[in-house]
Amino acid sequence: MSLTDIFATRSSRMKASEIRELLKLLEQPDIISFAGGIPDPNLFPMDAFREALAEAMQEPGSLQYSATEGYAPLRSWLAEQMTVLEVPCSAKNILITSGSQQALDHLGKLFLSPGDTTLLGWPTYLGALGAFNAYEPRYDRLDPGSNRAPEDFAAAAAENGGQVKMAYLSVDFCNPTGVTQTRDERLQVLHMADALDCAVIEDAAYQSLRFDGEALPPILALEIAKKGDIDKCRTIYCGSFSKTLSPGLRVGWVCAAEEVIQQLVLQKQAGDLHSPTLNQIAIEKVARRHFLSHVATIKSAYRARRDAMLAALEKYMPEGVDWTRPEGGMFIWMTLPPSMDSQDIFKTAVEEKRVAFVPGSPFYPDGTGANTMRLNFSNANEDMITEGVSRLAEVIRAAMAA
Amino acid sequence: MSLTDIFATRSSRMKASEIRELLKLLEQPDIISFAGGIPDPNLFPMDAFREALAEAMQEPGSLQYSATEGYAPLRSWLAEQMTVLEVPCSAKNILITSGSQQALDHLGKLFLSPGDTTLLGWPTYLGALGAFNAYEPRYDRLDPGSNRAPEDFAAAAAENGGQVKMAYLSVDFCNPTGVTQTRDERLQVLHMADALDCAVIEDAAYQSLRFDGEALPPILALEIAKKGDIDKCRTIYCGSFSKTLSPGLRVGWVCAAEEVIQQLVLQKQAGDLHSPTLNQIAIEKVARRHFLSHVATIKSAYRARRDAMLAALEKYMPEGVDWTRPEGGMFIWMTLPPSMDSQDIFKTAVEEKRVAFVPGSPFYPDGTGANTMRLNFSNANEDMITEGVSRLAEVIRAAMAA
Repeated sequence: MSLTDIFATRSSRMKASEIRELLKLLEQPDIISFAGGIPDPNLFPMDAFREALAEAMQEPGSLQYSATEGYAPLRSWLAEQMTVLEVPCSAKNILITSGSQQALDHLGKLFLSPGDTTLLGWPTYLGALGAFNAYEPRYDRLDPGSNRAPEDFAAAAAENGGQVKMAYLSVDFCNPTGVTQTRDERLQVLHMADALDCAVIEDAAYQSLRFDGEALPPILALEIAKKGDIDKCRTIYCGSFSKTLSPGLRVGWVCAAEEVIQQLVLQKQAGDLHSPTLNQIAIEKVARRHFLSHVATIKSAYRARRDAMLAALEKYMPEGVDWTRPEGGMFIWMTLPPSMDSQDIFKTAVEEKRVAFVPGSPFYPDGTGANTMRLNFSNANEDMITEGVSRLAEVIRAAMAA
Repeated sequence: MSLTDIFATRSSRMKASEIRELLKLLEQPDIISFAGGIPDPNLFPMDAFREALAEAMQEPGSLQYSATEGYAPLRSWLAEQMTVLEVPCSAKNILITSGSQQALDHLGKLFLSPGDTTLLGWPTYLGALGAFNAYEPRYDRLDPGSNRAPEDFAAAAAENGGQVKMAYLSVDFCNPTGVTQTRDERLQVLHMADALDCAVIEDAAYQSLRFDGEALPPILALEIAKKGDIDKCRTIYCGSFSKTLSPGLRVGWVCAAEEVIQQLVLQKQAGDLHSPTLNQIAIEKVARRHFLSHVATIKSAYRARRDAMLAALEKYMPEGVDWTRPEGGMFIWMTLPPSMDSQDIFKTAVEEKRVAFVPGSPFYPDGTGANTMRLNFSNANEDMITEGVSRLAEVIRAAMAA
C-alpha cells in the first residue's frame, strides 16, 4: 500500500514546479542569476525591525494567540493607506494574511468548485496558478484589449460544467512581465466582471514599487468610484509587505467587501487560526514609522538596476529579441524569435556562461510561450546586471546563428 | 448581486462557530473563565525569546524568503526529538507548518475529496472539524473499544459515495476531554486503519504536557515498531509548539513518510510559500536551549491548577455530575445528568455568577452532547479555580433543583 493511492483528486493538479527544481541548481556563487524573484536582503530595514521587535517583546501578548482578522492597529493603518489609494474603507474591510500568496489560496477556496472557470492573462503569476489549481478550476484567457464578449466566456464555462467565478490579474508591473494595465484596461476588466457577475482578484504585490510614470488607481478604486461603497464591490484587493518591508515575516492583507472578509475569516480560522501575532505587531510599528521613506530607498536602488538592465539589453541583444520596459517592480519579460526555445538557452547559459533566468513557458497555463523568459533585476548590482546581460546575449546570438 | 451567491459549495460547511461568538462575550475582567483553551502568557519564556530574536536579527536572512520545507536546523532538532519518542526519522520526514492547525487543514486537503469519510471520536477537537469541513467529508464515529468491524465502516463510506480516507485522533489529554488513549486503543486504531487502508492523523498538540502516569508511545512509534520504517507508515503525526513555547509565533510540524511530506510541501508552497523565517529560527534557538526545562516549569504550574480544579469539583459538585481526571493537558470534561443542557447553565453562569466554560455540544459532529461541558484549567490561578468551580456548582445545583 501507499498513501499516494488515496490522495484526493485535487492532488493530481499539484505537481512539483520545474522552475523551482531548476532554481535549486542555481545556488552556486559564481552564477549571475536573473532567475529569482526575491528582494535584495541588503535593503531590508534591519534596524527598524530590531527596534520594533524589542518593543513588541515587552508584552507577553506578542507570543499569545490573537484574532483571526489580524492585529487591530495594523488593520487600521492599512485601511488608512487604502483610503490614500482612493479605496475608502475601514478596518472591517481588511483581513491580515500570511503573505498575499495565502490570500490567493483562500480566494480559490472561497470561490472555486471543481470545473469553475478563472479568467486570467497568459503569461500569469505562477503562484496564482499553484494556489488555484488546488481547487481544480478551468482557465480561460482574458487579454487586455481582447474583444471576446462576456457571453462567450460564460458559454465556454458552462460547456465545461461550471461558471466564471473570478478574473485574476496583477495590474502594476506584474510578475512575470513587468507590464502595467492602463486605466481603460482596468475599466474593461470591471465591465467584463459586472457582465459575468464574477469576482475580480486584484493582485497588488508590486503596487508600491513604481519608479516612474503616473500611478493609476487600483481596479478596486475605480469600482468604488462607480458604485459608491466598497461593500458593494466585487473587486478583492490583495496586498503584501513582501516586496517592501520583509518577505520572510509573511504578512499580507486582503481589502474587500465586508461579506467577503467575514467568510475569509472563517476559512482562515479553520486553516491556521491567525497569522503570527509578533510579526503583525512588528510590521505595524515599522510600517507606521518608516514605510514611505523605506519604499523610497528601495525604489531608488531598483530603478538603477532596471535602468542598467534596459541599457544592457539595448546594447547587447541581437535584432529579433524584444523585451518589456516596466515602470516599476522587479521583472523584465523577454521574447525571442518564435522558433527559439528558452529552455535550450537556459541550459547553455547556466552551464557555459554562468548566467540564469526563468524560462517563460511555465507561466502559460496552456504550456505555450517557449520563446519567452523572465529576467529579474532586483537582486544583482548594476555591474553584475551588465555583465550578465552581455553573457546572455552571447548565448542567444550563438543559438540564432546555429 | 452579492458575491456570496457565487461562493464555492464548500463554503456552506464553513459557518461561524457559536463557541467563538460566545467567547467574545467573555472579555470582561470580572469573569472567571474556564472557557478558553490558551496557555498562561505569564509562563511564556520571554527572556529566552528576546535573546533568540536578537541573535536571529543579526542576519538579514531572517527576514528573507526561505524553504517551504522549513528551517533546516529546526527540522533536524525535531527529527532528534521524534527519535527520542521512539519515532526514528530524519529531517526529510519533517515539514514545518504554521501551527498544527495548518497541518490539519493541509491533511484534509491532501486526502479528502467531497463525500469521503473521516473517522473520529465524539466529542472531538473543534478545530479539526473546522479544518476538515472545508473539504466536504462525511464523519463516522470511531470510539476506542468499539467493536464495529472495518468492513462496516467501509460499507457505510461507500454507500455515501466515498471511501474512508483517514482516522483522526488526539491520543494524549485530548482537547476537549483530557482523556488519554491506552496502548491497546492505539494499536486498535492502527489495526483498523491497516484494514481500511486509510491514513491515521495523530494530533499530538498536548503530548509534552504529561503531569503524571506513564508516557505511552505515539501511534506512529507503535506503527514503526511493527513495520520497521517511517516511510512504510500510514500514521501522520502533527506536533505543535503552541502549548509549550508560544502559540502566537504559529510554529508546528508534521512528521510522516517522505512521500506524504513531499506532497504536503507542494500544497504548502501553493498555500503560503513557507512559515515565517524569523519565527522558525527563534523557536529553534529557544527549543534547543530551554525546551525541557521550560516544559518542566509549565507542567508544574498546570499540574497544580488541575489538582485545584479536581479538588474543587470533588468538594462542590452535586451527585449526578461526572468529570474526567486527565493526566496532563489543559482540559477537564464534565457530564451533567442527561436531562440537563449546558447551554442553559452557561447563560446563568455567565450572567449571574460570572463564571464561564464551553458548552459541549459543538464538539460533537452530530450535535448531541447537550449535557456536557469543557473546563479549561491552564489560564487561572488555584484560588480563582476554586472560586469558579464553587460558583459553577451553585448554578448546577439550582438548575437540578428547578
